[in-house]
Amino acid sequence: MTKIKQICDYLNQNDNYLILMHGSPDGDAVGSAYALCRALRALGKKADCACCDPLPRRYSYMTDGVENTNHNYEHILTVDVADPKLLGGLRKEYGDRIEVAIDHHASNIEYAELSLVRPEAAAACEVIYDVICDLGVAIDKKIAECLFTGIATDTGCFKFSNTTAATHRIAANLIEKGIDAGEINRIMFDTKSFARLDLERRVIEKMEILDEGKIAVLVLTAEMQEGLTPDDLEGINALSRQVEGVIVGITLREKEANRFKASVRTYDPVDASMICRKLGGGGHIRAAGCELKMPFDEARSTILAAVREELSK
Amino acid sequence: MTKIKQICDYLNQNDNYLILMHGSPDGDAVGSAYALCRALRALGKKADCACCDPLPRRYSYMTDGVENTNHNYEHILTVDVADPKLLGGLRKEYGDRIEVAIDHHASNIEYAELSLVRPEAAAACEVIYDVICDLGVAIDKKIAECLFTGIATDTGCFKFSNTTAATHRIAANLIEKGIDAGEINRIMFDTKSFARLDLERRVIEKMEILDEGKIAVLVLTAEMQEGLTPDDLEGINALSRQVEGVIVGITLREKEANRFKASVRTYDPVDASMICRKLGGGGHIRAAGCELKMPFDEARSTILAAVREELSK
Repeated sequence: MTKIKQICDYLNQNDNYLILMHGSPDGDAVGSAYALCRALRALGKKADCACCDPLPRRYSYMTDGVENTNHNYEHILTVDVADPKLLGGLRKEYGDRIEVAIDHHASNIEYAELSLVRPEAAAACEVIYDVICDLGVAIDKKIAECLFTGIATDTGCFKFSNTTAATHRIAANLIEKGIDAGEINRIMFDTKSFARLDLERRVIEKMEILDEGKIAVLVLTAEMQEGLTPDDLEGINALSRQVEGVIVGITLREKEANRFKASVRTYDPVDASMICRKLGGGGHIRAAGCELKMPFDEARSTILAAVREELSK
Repeated sequence: MTKIKQICDYLNQNDNYLILMHGSPDGDAVGSAYALCRALRALGKKADCACCDPLPRRYSYMTDGVENTNHNYEHILTVDVADPKLLGGLRKEYGDRIEVAIDHHASNIEYAELSLVRPEAAAACEVIYDVICDLGVAIDKKIAECLFTGIATDTGCFKFSNTTAATHRIAANLIEKGIDAGEINRIMFDTKSFARLDLERRVIEKMEILDEGKIAVLVLTAEMQEGLTPDDLEGINALSRQVEGVIVGITLREKEANRFKASVRTYDPVDASMICRKLGGGGHIRAAGCELKMPFDEARSTILAAVREELSK
């Protein structure tokens, strides 16, 4: 029996579900949880969603009308959760009771009794889409909004290289359910807080372009981060690699006095993880990070030396 | 006989084509022209492409290997051209000889002997995709790169509301031809000149947020535009409407002393064209413009008064 068939049998045969998301929930986490919750309710099941952190206000169109019923939860599921550590404050209560995990992270540690993990899926919502189809639940407009949101946000609106032909075909099917995809995309991608825009302005102002334009260095001092939410800071690192010609973007973010998080983003052929591993960090080939416990000038020259060594190869 | 069948018969029966693009060519113009040119050559036909303006360097992967042969052009086609006026310097020589126009602008003035205009298509490349399929030409990787580029650029990477289920399905088919869609998207959407980034910084710095956050005013003085290319300025207006809560974004761009182009972008329910029409301009419901021949302070208060009148309705 295939994994997805096992999951559908399990969902059909049981009742009283709680669906858990990871902390700092993004569009794919909220979309996966609420799409599955709505589908289970459409089957006549009891289902609620839970997260250790509050859901950002801009996701409210996905959660509208799905109030938690706080029934007696018999079966615990997770969606888009690679590791129970990511459940934050909910881990203690539910971490050992997870029966089903539906995910798309290759790094999923297979902590659930039954795991459906598809690393080739761009978003957990792609996997949830297949589960809902296999359950035989008709995808209504609200479910389609949830699934579309997860797919759009995890692919940078179909921009990143994780976007496959299958991703586009699912998006096509969801658009045919009558959703206003343009409006969802506007909320997700074209709406910024003024604080975020102002942060971008200050980051660009301080940006250094070095080594004939191949390296960009961004700095986020503690003072620049004052009063900002994690949402305001999300993805700001990406600015470093956007300048035409730059192949290594470095972001130095001050965590506290004399402690900096260095994020390194690269383009072919530079290996970001090689740069960060030298300094005790790690990551992927195009995005990696390390921590530098030293004053700013030293942190800057340390990471620059590691980058230049890799560039000269 | 359907229009597309007529076009395919015409293309099959003739030879020695010149395909014209509009001036200031964008990704859809270049993608449409070079996809069709490559397809016609695959059929053994002679075909070249022409534009009154140089093609931006970032589109070179579409034109690579398609050198113009400067043969004797017997048949003139246009792609993505709503009006022969848009041919610029090529209009004089070819404006009266256009036999076929393939386009997606509802505003196409039907100037060709045979026009295939599909306003429901998000990009001219969607229409060209159907033409190439109907011609029976196998879409190779290079043709797929051209078509994908046009579709991605005209939809803001599948973000805008012109993106349909059909758009996503064509994208899926093109990705299956082996293109590196992530890399194309990176070049089109995640690469900015430093001059552009710096302009954004200066625009945000001067941005005014008024009327409890409902109105944003951007200013582009002549001094801020010095040394910038049209590419650097493209789409800068969109910044005005990106701030959370803003429903009317105004951009005042200084064209010369005491002459400003006002661009108005709105969200539901504000009608931008109503605002601009009062001041002698016009446009669409969400994006309109007008010219204000007066000093800056007067231009600012004039457009603000018109916006506030519309907002108070």
